[in-house]
Amino acid sequence: MTSDKFTNIAGGITAPKGFKAAGVAAGIKKKSGNKDLAIIYSEQMASAAGVFTTNKVKAAPLMVTMANLEDGKAQGIVVNAGNANACTGEQGKENALAMAGAAASKLGLGEKDMLVTSTGVIGVQLPMDRIITGITKAAEAIAYDGGKDAAQAIMTTDTYAKELALKVVIGGKEVTLGAMAKGSGMIHPNMATMLGFVTSDAAIEPGLLKQALRYAIDKSFNMITVDGDTSTNDMVVVLANGMAGNQEITAENEDYVLFRDALAEICIIIAKEIARDGEGATKLIEATVKGARNIEDARKAAKAIVGSNLFKCAVFGADANWGRVICAVGYSGAEFDASNVDIYLGHVKTAEKGVPLDFSEEEAKEVLEQKEVKVLVDLGEGEAEATAWGCDLTYDYVKINGSYRT
Amino acid sequence: MTSDKFTNIAGGITAPKGFKAAGVAAGIKKKSGNKDLAIIYSEQMASAAGVFTTNKVKAAPLMVTMANLEDGKAQGIVVNAGNANACTGEQGKENALAMAGAAASKLGLGEKDMLVTSTGVIGVQLPMDRIITGITKAAEAIAYDGGKDAAQAIMTTDTYAKELALKVVIGGKEVTLGAMAKGSGMIHPNMATMLGFVTSDAAIEPGLLKQALRYAIDKSFNMITVDGDTSTNDMVVVLANGMAGNQEITAENEDYVLFRDALAEICIIIAKEIARDGEGATKLIEATVKGARNIEDARKAAKAIVGSNLFKCAVFGADANWGRVICAVGYSGAEFDASNVDIYLGHVKTAEKGVPLDFSEEEAKEVLEQKEVKVLVDLGEGEAEATAWGCDLTYDYVKINGSYRT
Repeated sequence: MTSDKFTNIAGGITAPKGFKAAGVAAGIKKKSGNKDLAIIYSEQMASAAGVFTTNKVKAAPLMVTMANLEDGKAQGIVVNAGNANACTGEQGKENALAMAGAAASKLGLGEKDMLVTSTGVIGVQLPMDRIITGITKAAEAIAYDGGKDAAQAIMTTDTYAKELALKVVIGGKEVTLGAMAKGSGMIHPNMATMLGFVTSDAAIEPGLLKQALRYAIDKSFNMITVDGDTSTNDMVVVLANGMAGNQEITAENEDYVLFRDALAEICIIIAKEIARDGEGATKLIEATVKGARNIEDARKAAKAIVGSNLFKCAVFGADANWGRVICAVGYSGAEFDASNVDIYLGHVKTAEKGVPLDFSEEEAKEVLEQKEVKVLVDLGEGEAEATAWGCDLTYDYVKINGSYRT
Repeated sequence: MTSDKFTNIAGGITAPKGFKAAGVAAGIKKKSGNKDLAIIYSEQMASAAGVFTTNKVKAAPLMVTMANLEDGKAQGIVVNAGNANACTGEQGKENALAMAGAAASKLGLGEKDMLVTSTGVIGVQLPMDRIITGITKAAEAIAYDGGKDAAQAIMTTDTYAKELALKVVIGGKEVTLGAMAKGSGMIHPNMATMLGFVTSDAAIEPGLLKQALRYAIDKSFNMITVDGDTSTNDMVVVLANGMAGNQEITAENEDYVLFRDALAEICIIIAKEIARDGEGATKLIEATVKGARNIEDARKAAKAIVGSNLFKCAVFGADANWGRVICAVGYSGAEFDASNVDIYLGHVKTAEKGVPLDFSEEEAKEVLEQKEVKVLVDLGEGEAEATAWGCDLTYDYVKINGSYRT
């Protein structure tokens, strides 16, 4: 990642040229008055690509969005929070179609050019009257500065809205990427109740956009976990409308690599925010595994560390229980020999060649008391390296999830 | 399981003929005065078999025990709690050997006939002076009524000692099986920091004993989870010393099936106790998945339900969030079509053919407020069925694991 090529700028999904958005209160969330319906709109038809949950149970709106993305084009997205429209049968599918249809009609777009998604409680039908009223309201409200409202509207148990924008020069033209996302429980590799939206004014052919998104997601959204649950509704969608005026990217050339890396960068930063804001979390955990035989092993091992309930509790309690790190790597499925493994908590080396060192508990505790806790494991087997992000497991996680619906 | 063939009786590992045991305080646990070293002794050489953690990182004593079980025979087991002797390198291996050697010598057994295991914190060398003193003390203390002391000595964060015995008539002879086990964090399919010891006075050939143990474990210890962490030290060992006087079981005949089923029964009962007493748990969760295409799918789906942090929190909070059940089944890897699935929380049917029913929240809440919460999922695909056990995820889980070492 050559992040000196990218410049962070203010804003989110409406930072790129030609994007408008809105977030309104439609009365879908229990706590009324909170924004819960968002629309993203591109002034020009955009190349579009998505990645979807691997859960066998896919929510109705995902089926609609997957179908509408088949031509690699889209111009708008409608999202609601508070109700996932999952496990809702035929009625759910009709509702998802109606939701996309209403948004398309209000914005004067073709039905197939509107994407739709939902997040929230499973197994309850959408309140369609409120949804339709909300869509009307949002379609009227869309604006060039509406990104923030949209980012707020897609939140469920997130404690803050997540948005981000960055610039990169591609083929002499300034290209902007914007993103918004929501977490915060059910976050796990291969996505989770996690919605991510990336917009860009880059000109790029749909097939390459999809390929770039896959690349970016493998390094970002697929490397975060909050609680190991992979949801029925996860998706990340990217729209690129070409309004930056760069020469359209149609081959895997230098321009492609620049765009792909910028997309990965924005996805990594926003995915980390999801991990940081995991339900009840007080700390971000970053686990890097290097010296793996191959990238799959490195990823498996890194994800196992940030996914271990035991280690997550130890981080919450600032307990330097590095044994739980090697234990997690041990059951990750990665190939290694314990007697080659070095482990660091922050700068404190706690084990060398698989054997404990006589490290300072105080120094280690200091590391674990930071808001960002870094763990490094060197497997001593090869050259591959990967990083995963997660959060600590806290009393508040239990509290939030013991009474989510009620 | 034809459980009317088995009679529960008082006692544990010393209930079968010819078994003695002891549990003593050796000063290995932080809180001194607590028992932390146990010995099990069989008056006659026993057929012996074990099953061990699938974690790549295996603790030193497991290596010794695996080697000593190669001949299918053993006569004693020494166990300590408070220190896992895992990630302890060459020194750890020497210590495990010395531990087995000392116990064998005190009991007048061959070194290879003594098994050894440890549980507790990872990455700290055993305090060998205390271990040896403890072994001397325990070897002197072994008695026909020492099962309870041993069950207490192997506890770490367990809140109560787990032991059990049952009788079964095999070939006209009364055969007894006894068991003890410890949980309580890091409990997960394919075992976990979970130690299980089964004794029996049955006469059975070692190969069949191993086969029966595999069968039993697939239905019991491999179907429980507390937190998804698979430990470096898990093992279940069975000794059968033949003193019941039944004709030795040397073929897969009726006697074999009876013994195998009795072994499965005792393993299931004690494994459920481990789930019930999971760290911080207030409730036992029993998830049955039926109508699966095959047994692997049924097992995967059942384990995913009891392994879902989100559902575990919902059970803690008595929140009838059955969407989390189908979500877990969805990412379990089991093959099914969501539109065929029925879901029950206790007797309350919450979804039919994948679609929510208008059930009574109050009734469902009542189900979830019980000490044992049953979930039934019918996938509607085939005939296979499996049951898994777990526990709720609570504030206390976080508390216990935030400060385990300190």
